[in-house]
Amino acid sequence: MNMTDPNSRTYAVIGTGAVGGYYGGLLAKSGQRVHFLSRSDHAVIRQHGLRIDSRDGDYVIQPASVFASSEDMPKCDVILVCIKTTANANVRELIEPILKEDSLVVVLQNGLFVEEAASQVVGYDRVVGGCCFLCSTKVGPGHVHHIDYGRVVLGAYRGKGNDQGGGHAGQMQRVFRDFVDARIEASWSENLLADRWKKLMWNIPYNGLSVVLDASTSDVMGQPHSRQLVRDIMVEVQQIASASGIAIDDSLIEKLIRDTDAMVPYDSSMRVDYRMRRGMELEAIFEMPLEVARHWGHPAPRLTMLSQQLRFLDARNLATKKADE
Amino acid sequence: MNMTDPNSRTYAVIGTGAVGGYYGGLLAKSGQRVHFLSRSDHAVIRQHGLRIDSRDGDYVIQPASVFASSEDMPKCDVILVCIKTTANANVRELIEPILKEDSLVVVLQNGLFVEEAASQVVGYDRVVGGCCFLCSTKVGPGHVHHIDYGRVVLGAYRGKGNDQGGGHAGQMQRVFRDFVDARIEASWSENLLADRWKKLMWNIPYNGLSVVLDASTSDVMGQPHSRQLVRDIMVEVQQIASASGIAIDDSLIEKLIRDTDAMVPYDSSMRVDYRMRRGMELEAIFEMPLEVARHWGHPAPRLTMLSQQLRFLDARNLATKKADE
Repeated sequence: MNMTDPNSRTYAVIGTGAVGGYYGGLLAKSGQRVHFLSRSDHAVIRQHGLRIDSRDGDYVIQPASVFASSEDMPKCDVILVCIKTTANANVRELIEPILKEDSLVVVLQNGLFVEEAASQVVGYDRVVGGCCFLCSTKVGPGHVHHIDYGRVVLGAYRGKGNDQGGGHAGQMQRVFRDFVDARIEASWSENLLADRWKKLMWNIPYNGLSVVLDASTSDVMGQPHSRQLVRDIMVEVQQIASASGIAIDDSLIEKLIRDTDAMVPYDSSMRVDYRMRRGMELEAIFEMPLEVARHWGHPAPRLTMLSQQLRFLDARNLATKKADE
Repeated sequence: MNMTDPNSRTYAVIGTGAVGGYYGGLLAKSGQRVHFLSRSDHAVIRQHGLRIDSRDGDYVIQPASVFASSEDMPKCDVILVCIKTTANANVRELIEPILKEDSLVVVLQNGLFVEEAASQVVGYDRVVGGCCFLCSTKVGPGHVHHIDYGRVVLGAYRGKGNDQGGGHAGQMQRVFRDFVDARIEASWSENLLADRWKKLMWNIPYNGLSVVLDASTSDVMGQPHSRQLVRDIMVEVQQIASASGIAIDDSLIEKLIRDTDAMVPYDSSMRVDYRMRRGMELEAIFEMPLEVARHWGHPAPRLTMLSQQLRFLDARNLATKKADE
């Protein structure tokens, strides 16, 4: 237990869903003081605790310190941003009330430049990004099902040009140690941007195609034409990264395909969002990479086409939802 | 009535569906001797006639000369091939029994090089291709609903290299006159291959996207991202045609988009096939143009990706159908 450690930190988890519940739950279980924000589930969590059914053993965090609004939360040393990137316009109002002078913000989101919103609030020197390799789902209020994986690659955010930030390395390392001590499979990256791109090489084809083709990862991998398309899209993402100065070895493509073949059939987070008629994370996963492609003069035909298809589906999905309400 | 004209021709309609019913019906109505092949509907047509509900007035061809097999049909001067291109492997056995020494074959199908199958049987000099601009659907056995349009562009087939065929021009012109006399909106093209490509500029984006996005033409046109995608795909088809020596003016893109905006919301034939769980015409509409692209060194990324997506959907669709049977 770190409760009595004078060097211990207080954590805030902004968004207690599949990601925030999983990582926040493990930090709380390890003895860290964790305060959860859950606009929708705070009453259930206060009464029944935060319930995690995990591949590694089920547990409940009870009592859990949970709040409906960050206005009511104590100021915290470390703030984990675990909301969907589609809500990143709200980051300032969500984290400002709980900032100390030297709080660190850890952005556990998918996509590119997702740390920008937090950086605008606390400055580039105080933002850590995290690429999560996690299969988990919120199955009910305050109830997360951890299906597989859980690895997170953490690193200092260094801005869109990868040339800012980098301060407070010692403080960042202490947070990283907290993750490791909580038995989170965490690693520290000296080049977060490169890891973001490597993650995109998976997210772009599988998130995108799982929605457009209405298919699980294993459906997509089980058919030669869609399998080749996955590979073609990965090559295009690799080329865009390379044009922007991030070299990614060809062997990653083979590794990602091998890893996905070995995965349990899985609904990507984007497909889950689409099916639940929530907005998809198109800005972070498609538009930002396309912005980089445009900047460096890569035509990105496949990525453009996939984005156009997804924007059509997203608009129809949300219009249908609105009509149903 | 041409019945007593010693120069009149006998027609065979191979496949009495949305296309064969419409054009064969008009030829029969104009007095031509037309023999219909309908494997599925021959009994209904024999009893109730061939029924056409048309924008231009409803009519019934009764009695209709209809057969279940071409083995039973009389030999004919002109053979209209109106089956789906997915059945083109059967063209030889379907037309051989009804060939005279100088029969002409008119291939009324969508796609590229769809005339190859017939050319292998009767030779390049005896094949006319037709690009149909027709909105019609078979709504029941022996019952076609003609919704809109009806224009057909006819021309001598000149092989994959556009450098063969071209014989029997007089005979072809007489058949063309029969079409015009039957009040079919027909025009004669001196460069059928160019017209095939122009038709593909519509078919490839609208057939493809209507299936992948599960959307009507007006849905696709009603959203800025899918609208831009249509345009991007049209440009790619134009580039492939150009690489192969077929120049298409930019103004066609604007015209096709304007025309589609003015169309009634319409399910493309490919979407109808997909929904009915029939195989889609991917070979004729996607693979042949891609073969041309490969031959001339155009990477065709959008066309390739659309084809890969459609092949995935086609395989799943047919597998699901099989599982249901």
